[in-house]
Amino acid sequence: MTSALRAIGFDADDTLWHNESLFSLGQEKFRALLAPYHSAEWINRTLYETELRNLAHFGYGIKGFALSMIETAVELTEGRISGSEIGQILALAKAMVAAPVELLPGVEEIVPRLAQSYPLLLITKGDLFDQEGKLARSGLGEYFTHIDIVREKDADVYTAILAKHGIAPENFLMVGNSLRSDILPVLAIGGRAAHIPYAITWQHEAADAPEPATNGFHHLASLYDLPALLQTLPANG
Amino acid sequence: MTSALRAIGFDADDTLWHNESLFSLGQEKFRALLAPYHSAEWINRTLYETELRNLAHFGYGIKGFALSMIETAVELTEGRISGSEIGQILALAKAMVAAPVELLPGVEEIVPRLAQSYPLLLITKGDLFDQEGKLARSGLGEYFTHIDIVREKDADVYTAILAKHGIAPENFLMVGNSLRSDILPVLAIGGRAAHIPYAITWQHEAADAPEPATNGFHHLASLYDLPALLQTLPANG
Repeated sequence: MTSALRAIGFDADDTLWHNESLFSLGQEKFRALLAPYHSAEWINRTLYETELRNLAHFGYGIKGFALSMIETAVELTEGRISGSEIGQILALAKAMVAAPVELLPGVEEIVPRLAQSYPLLLITKGDLFDQEGKLARSGLGEYFTHIDIVREKDADVYTAILAKHGIAPENFLMVGNSLRSDILPVLAIGGRAAHIPYAITWQHEAADAPEPATNGFHHLASLYDLPALLQTLPANG
Repeated sequence: MTSALRAIGFDADDTLWHNESLFSLGQEKFRALLAPYHSAEWINRTLYETELRNLAHFGYGIKGFALSMIETAVELTEGRISGSEIGQILALAKAMVAAPVELLPGVEEIVPRLAQSYPLLLITKGDLFDQEGKLARSGLGEYFTHIDIVREKDADVYTAILAKHGIAPENFLMVGNSLRSDILPVLAIGGRAAHIPYAITWQHEAADAPEPATNGFHHLASLYDLPALLQTLPANG
């Protein structure tokens, strides 16, 4: 693969800033609330099943997560959950929405530097309201020339986004933590992809990594390694 | 105002398809659920206050509405609401998300016809997941050259959208049901705006109409009247 790189796409949650840790912490508090009723394992499993079933109704994001927690609480307590406990779940959701955005290592230095050399695209799924709020609070908005917030990130969606911006897949590199959403679909359409794993992966995003020698696939330990990778690629001509 | 018209923007909810009626119906079922506890007036008032307070946390859309209904139910019953009643509110929210999209009069004929002569922009606020789902189910997606789903529609947001698409405000007409979100901000930046009222206006969207003689302001009874208005405007040159 010798095509020049002309644009870099970034995932947002768990690539630019911590996110899954916020959901994990929220889920921990939810488990504590339901501890009198059920074991932690059973609560986790039921919540995950409820979340998956509700993706079709509510999509990704904190509001859908909150509704799934409430549904799980009603189900697991056979309706015995109290109004004040439901109120605690609502308070938890509001605290998650308002949580400070904590950038991941290297983001604050590397993103502004790359923005001087390449158009940067932010390509994220999730709730529009959540994501725009986080981007505003992150202070990174000015470095991205395009922001695409989409329902799902699959090969068709990447094809449509790149076509809209006039970028050929072979001139594009996607950077992200999710093999399922950031890496595999971009490789599938002939783009490059740099995987930077996050400490926690939501079960739904888990996927097998491509073989290390897969064309266009790169594995990085952190964003600090991205500039060195870019130097090995053909110049932006 | 004699500038040629070069693009038409459409609001979505209550302009292209019924929406507020769905929320009204949802609210009616919610009131019935809480009828043993409080009067209809008091339930309506408390729900509205909760919705306004929660806009900053949850934004617009069905998920935020569902969370506000649950919060209101907990508050109004002083925590005595049962888990199974909460379950009924969740079921109501899911039914709203899956409700069929019912187009408003004239939309099915007029939108495809206008798309042959003008670029059409869909400019809507609300929940990305809800709005993309409704657009897909409406069958209208192919007629819009650009789709902008935003957090709020004010003068700055319209300025940014038009700049992004390279359209001068004086060459732009916005069509919508909300004076607050579709009409006043567009007139404020020097664009044209056609107001087509919907049968119900959510209290939060209410605003005073501009004087009938305001430059660029038009009042239409239905979308059927839009082609005649366009003929009175300078040709798309």
